[in-house]
Amino acid sequence: MQTVEILTLVSSAAAILTAVFSARSVMRRPTGSQKMVEIGDAIKKGADAFLRRQYTTVAIFVFLVFLLFLITPAFGFKASLAYLCGALSSMAAGYLGMQIAVRSNTRTAHASLSGLGEALKIAFRGGLVMGMLVVGLGMLSLLGLALGFGWLDDPQRLLPLCFGASSVAVFARVGGGIYTKTADVGADLVGKVEKGIPEDDPRNPAVIADNVGDNVGDVAGMGSDLFESYLAAIVAAMVVGFTQGGRNYVLFPVGVAAVGIISCILASFLVRVRGGKDPSYVLNFASMASMLFTFLGTFVLVWLFFGSEFRLLACIVCGLVSGLAVGLASDYFTNRLHKPAQHVAKSASSGAAVNILSGYAMGLLSLFVPVLVISVSVVASYVMKGMYGICLAGVGMLSVTGMVVSADAYGPVADNAGGILEQSGAGEKVRETTDALDSVGNTMKAISKGFAIGSAALTAIALFSSYAGVANLTSIDLLDPKVVAGALVGGAVISLFSALVILAVSRNAFRMVEEVRRQFREIRGLMEGKAKPDYGRCVDIATRGALKELILPSVLVILSPVIVAFVGGSLAVSGMLLGAILVGLVFALQMANSGAVWDNAKKYIELGNLGGKGTSTHQAAVVGDTVGDPLKDAAGPSLNIAIKLMSIVAILVAQAGVV
Amino acid sequence: MQTVEILTLVSSAAAILTAVFSARSVMRRPTGSQKMVEIGDAIKKGADAFLRRQYTTVAIFVFLVFLLFLITPAFGFKASLAYLCGALSSMAAGYLGMQIAVRSNTRTAHASLSGLGEALKIAFRGGLVMGMLVVGLGMLSLLGLALGFGWLDDPQRLLPLCFGASSVAVFARVGGGIYTKTADVGADLVGKVEKGIPEDDPRNPAVIADNVGDNVGDVAGMGSDLFESYLAAIVAAMVVGFTQGGRNYVLFPVGVAAVGIISCILASFLVRVRGGKDPSYVLNFASMASMLFTFLGTFVLVWLFFGSEFRLLACIVCGLVSGLAVGLASDYFTNRLHKPAQHVAKSASSGAAVNILSGYAMGLLSLFVPVLVISVSVVASYVMKGMYGICLAGVGMLSVTGMVVSADAYGPVADNAGGILEQSGAGEKVRETTDALDSVGNTMKAISKGFAIGSAALTAIALFSSYAGVANLTSIDLLDPKVVAGALVGGAVISLFSALVILAVSRNAFRMVEEVRRQFREIRGLMEGKAKPDYGRCVDIATRGALKELILPSVLVILSPVIVAFVGGSLAVSGMLLGAILVGLVFALQMANSGAVWDNAKKYIELGNLGGKGTSTHQAAVVGDTVGDPLKDAAGPSLNIAIKLMSIVAILVAQAGVV
Repeated sequence: MQTVEILTLVSSAAAILTAVFSARSVMRRPTGSQKMVEIGDAIKKGADAFLRRQYTTVAIFVFLVFLLFLITPAFGFKASLAYLCGALSSMAAGYLGMQIAVRSNTRTAHASLSGLGEALKIAFRGGLVMGMLVVGLGMLSLLGLALGFGWLDDPQRLLPLCFGASSVAVFARVGGGIYTKTADVGADLVGKVEKGIPEDDPRNPAVIADNVGDNVGDVAGMGSDLFESYLAAIVAAMVVGFTQGGRNYVLFPVGVAAVGIISCILASFLVRVRGGKDPSYVLNFASMASMLFTFLGTFVLVWLFFGSEFRLLACIVCGLVSGLAVGLASDYFTNRLHKPAQHVAKSASSGAAVNILSGYAMGLLSLFVPVLVISVSVVASYVMKGMYGICLAGVGMLSVTGMVVSADAYGPVADNAGGILEQSGAGEKVRETTDALDSVGNTMKAISKGFAIGSAALTAIALFSSYAGVANLTSIDLLDPKVVAGALVGGAVISLFSALVILAVSRNAFRMVEEVRRQFREIRGLMEGKAKPDYGRCVDIATRGALKELILPSVLVILSPVIVAFVGGSLAVSGMLLGAILVGLVFALQMANSGAVWDNAKKYIELGNLGGKGTSTHQAAVVGDTVGDPLKDAAGPSLNIAIKLMSIVAILVAQAGVV
Repeated sequence: MQTVEILTLVSSAAAILTAVFSARSVMRRPTGSQKMVEIGDAIKKGADAFLRRQYTTVAIFVFLVFLLFLITPAFGFKASLAYLCGALSSMAAGYLGMQIAVRSNTRTAHASLSGLGEALKIAFRGGLVMGMLVVGLGMLSLLGLALGFGWLDDPQRLLPLCFGASSVAVFARVGGGIYTKTADVGADLVGKVEKGIPEDDPRNPAVIADNVGDNVGDVAGMGSDLFESYLAAIVAAMVVGFTQGGRNYVLFPVGVAAVGIISCILASFLVRVRGGKDPSYVLNFASMASMLFTFLGTFVLVWLFFGSEFRLLACIVCGLVSGLAVGLASDYFTNRLHKPAQHVAKSASSGAAVNILSGYAMGLLSLFVPVLVISVSVVASYVMKGMYGICLAGVGMLSVTGMVVSADAYGPVADNAGGILEQSGAGEKVRETTDALDSVGNTMKAISKGFAIGSAALTAIALFSSYAGVANLTSIDLLDPKVVAGALVGGAVISLFSALVILAVSRNAFRMVEEVRRQFREIRGLMEGKAKPDYGRCVDIATRGALKELILPSVLVILSPVIVAFVGGSLAVSGMLLGAILVGLVFALQMANSGAVWDNAKKYIELGNLGGKGTSTHQAAVVGDTVGDPLKDAAGPSLNIAIKLMSIVAILVAQAGVV
């Protein structure tokens, strides 16, 4: 089995090297005109300001939890180190990934001037850095701890590592979500709606904050989310595997992760525009390839090292297929090329209210098939290999995390590039190229968002079974009213959490709107383009607000399992976790897909359909898009964090033995 | 114990007599001016047209299910008779209640001209007919069957009675919901938004359909919903009580229902405006009184007949308190006198999107406390008396059904009266009186909506425990993935169901909008008030559409437990029921309260706050209100039916022994 350990170390190293090479390859490209560099620098400065302030807060929080681990008798030094390790590697991945992403955008913008092929490559490499850092640093820290402390024979002790990743994810995902939507809504409401100036117009004081926000949400936020899922799914499988089949079962998920990393690296070479092919299929094709490679690699892995026990492979396939199904369903229900988005666009001709209702309904419709597929996967993988099988399905789904994060981080790079071209006045010339770049990103965004949700749910279910093990529950009977009451409370906590995030965005967006209005009112010549707005103030408002507003929802999800554990005991906690997973999954998919379908319906109209821009139909669609923004980019993704965090906290409380 | 049976028969008879006297007292009042009678007749004709077509369809459906019961070996003649009994008594209550409600409106309108006191009394008596018929006919048919067939010793056999009530409720609640919102959205979108004419303007071709819709939704719909909850909660308690404590435990819930009926009749005498008191507390006061009387009566009942087993009383109190908590929370979060609605109204000043987001968030916030209270009630009543205790909590909550339905049916009578005054040109003169009448209705509406949802959830939980008994499940283990998968599927089915209802409303509203636009375009002199619109066509479109559109969602909730039973067995079904109850409860509360808070935020602005009517703030609030309409009056209330229906179907499938 040592071969598997070595394979994994090698693959982690390969991932980190790939990140380094991609970063260097991006940095060698020309940065474009003076004007582009200027805008790019503003975005970079904004992102730095956000990261600096956020990381200061995170560091304090992480240090306090570190101390808490240190002084809790059940945990102690090694656990606190594991926690720190999880937090620091997530922070490192986020920081470095962001640094490259905000440097790739001007370069992508410049490359767009000479054609699609090169621009796509740079944007993807910019995203690849984040993707590879997530899986590389993740596996490295996991394996380092496991081998260093001999935890392969006691994988439960790796759980604080996941909690470390969770801690950072809360800030990056919840705080990042609030940040990005504060900026977006603020920019749109005053700029597009009140002043009637285009998106990404340099006169808009919130435009840089908006561009920064794209990176904050889709690079740092998504990255930290999947970093957490990735570690938690693997650790959960190791924990359950240990009790069910010993050392070999502990190593298998690690081996699958290694295979996944190598597959993603291989697939990344496939990202190039071939003559005549629709570029929007490029990333799709590479993602599919990474899944296929993972399947083949896992086949070999099982065959060579695990006694041809192909039911293990079947569980991994369950996960891969679920991931694909969730992603494809999201794409179908939200892509402007398909009926649902066009239906929502058409409904905008009856006004904003009808547009909102039909997008809301589409979101609800869209989740039926994914949830059904996940349910079938859960049962099928259980039939194969019991609880361990369910955990493996989670690992299988997440094995291609490297590719998913890369493709998702591509989005803001391409989006920023378009914004930079627009602001530098070169937008009109290369509209076709930037539109193509953007369309590549949109499809992938829907797919990876669905993927993040599906994997969070599977991870949470895997953590749920670890919880049962840690809390010594041999049965969780629904005929016990504590379980039912727990489930109801879990659902209520998730609802409250969503409400708090949405209200946080509204409150913060309100501050932003006031500031943008103030600048338009007080800075003379701004509207005429003769004076520059104060971008920094807007970045600052979004940053401060996001950090302040994330406290309440985060405290809620961290404390609720603790309180329920004290009041109702472990059965109530089990019920609560199930209720949270169920309602969280439903809400997250609905919010993500409703938000995306409103967005794409608006874009569909902006492409000239149904009268195009400036019509009342377009106005109505803009309202839908604005409603969807905080749902799809703040509350929805935050739910992924919420359900995983609740599960991990519940496990740690059980481990601490205080209840 | 015979005393209890006699008490119940007497109280049912008293309820029916109260209905008859109230109806006669209403009918003796003057109907007002020629113009009022004319409008009243149009509403009456519209309601008749709706009922005639709906009941024809219901009759066919009921007859087919009747035959199905007849030929299924496990059921046979008596079961099919019980089914028919449930369906027919629900239909009778709905029909008679509607007849009186649509006759009370002109009389209330006329009475408004001479003051609030008399108008309030007539409107309440008009609603009281429905309330008393629901409880009177419900208890009478239940007791008739139980005594006639000796089913007090085999209460399981009463379940087809509940299914009969469910069958009618689907049509009345789902179909009624689609009807009422088709008409409302159609009338508002063209009339208020496009043409800029006031609500209830006689030039609007959809105005009569809209007035009919109020009755269809809040009289027939709400009545049939609570009729079903009422019967199902009592029967579930009888079923569980029989296994847990024999004959006495079967009779106790029946006795509580009798006490509740008498309490409601007594409390109904308290509905009168006393000099100087705020009329909006009148109905609240009477409702509270009915709860207090029920508490006292149950105390006596337990003391005299049930060996001073006061834990039985405690379970009933759990139910009463939960009902109160759910209602009060709904009121707090939606009443325009409180902060949430005012916050939502203020947010409309930042545009429609922000208004929608904050109303959506308020809906999510609002459900935390009610769900928490229900959870605590479930655990507390279980601690008292096991599963039977949970069922009793449901009975306790529903014991005041008579009052709740009466107060809710008051709403459309008062609303219609305002509309009739507006259309007959007498609106301005008595604005203060109609506003006061309406404000009484609004608070009660929020409370009773919350009550309907809470009771549906408790009833479904009670049915869930009956299901476990019928399907011989001694444990439903969440560590069995079939249960978890079932729960996920249950949540997905509820989401799909909601989506289908919302889309049904949009589709049907679209037809209505087209028709209203056509009339404005083609009927010359309509806008100038020189020609009359064709009200009948609009009523017809709403009716046909509603009946067509209810098929798909209804088939979904009826078939899904059957399919899951065949595919996954009874454990999967249990999981599914729990998932459906949880997601259904969350969705229903959120939709009801978001809808109500948008509505009341708009009304708050219309009262002259934040600039009042005609401002862009008001426009934004109208969008929110329109989004909320199908949620609060169609999809949300339909969910009550969905979760109960799924549970009953699951039980019948288990009884039939086919799986």
